[in-house]
Amino acid sequence: MTGIEEVVDQKVSTAFIQINDINIELLTPTDPDSPIQHFLAKRGKGIHHIALEVEDLEKALEELHNHGVKLIDNKPRIGAHNKKIAFIHPSATGGVLIELCESGPE
Amino acid sequence: MTGIEEVVDQKVSTAFIQINDINIELLTPTDPDSPIQHFLAKRGKGIHHIALEVEDLEKALEELHNHGVKLIDNKPRIGAHNKKIAFIHPSATGGVLIELCESGPE
Repeated sequence: MTGIEEVVDQKVSTAFIQINDINIELLTPTDPDSPIQHFLAKRGKGIHHIALEVEDLEKALEELHNHGVKLIDNKPRIGAHNKKIAFIHPSATGGVLIELCESGPE
Repeated sequence: MTGIEEVVDQKVSTAFIQINDINIELLTPTDPDSPIQHFLAKRGKGIHHIALEVEDLEKALEELHNHGVKLIDNKPRIGAHNKKIAFIHPSATGGVLIELCESGPE
């Protein structure tokens, strides 16, 4: 497991377990107003989202927008590991919250 | 996307989208008594489980059992693609349903 990192913007603490090309991210809220706290209150513990890596996040968001896919983030923001990330709206993907993250050096 | 396959035992229809070493499995119930129908009724659409591949499923289940991890399946059963699978009980893994599947020829 890699070190624990706080993502201040999302009010969460994260830790990653790497299995080959996959990372399992553990999330816990650091504030009652964290989106993760809202998720826990509404749905209980479980799988929060899946993240898919893309080479060019702005281009991916533009393509999705042009195909009428509803986005939470129309522009990239900064997530764990200082990576550019954006979320697709779960109403567009059968209730599954999908994060896109831009590939780059760790 | 690969062909649609019905898993009669679980009363579901499945389809797989492969991304490098990862498969995203789409699931839909084929019967009101399907475990997937119960999940949809209780939690709504979303992520149902994650699956991790292991080399020797019986050995993995024995190791988990010896560590006191609660299992849904103490012995492997047959899932999609005719693979040996087993589920860990979500109460042992923070509400996350984890499937183990034995690696092998597709």
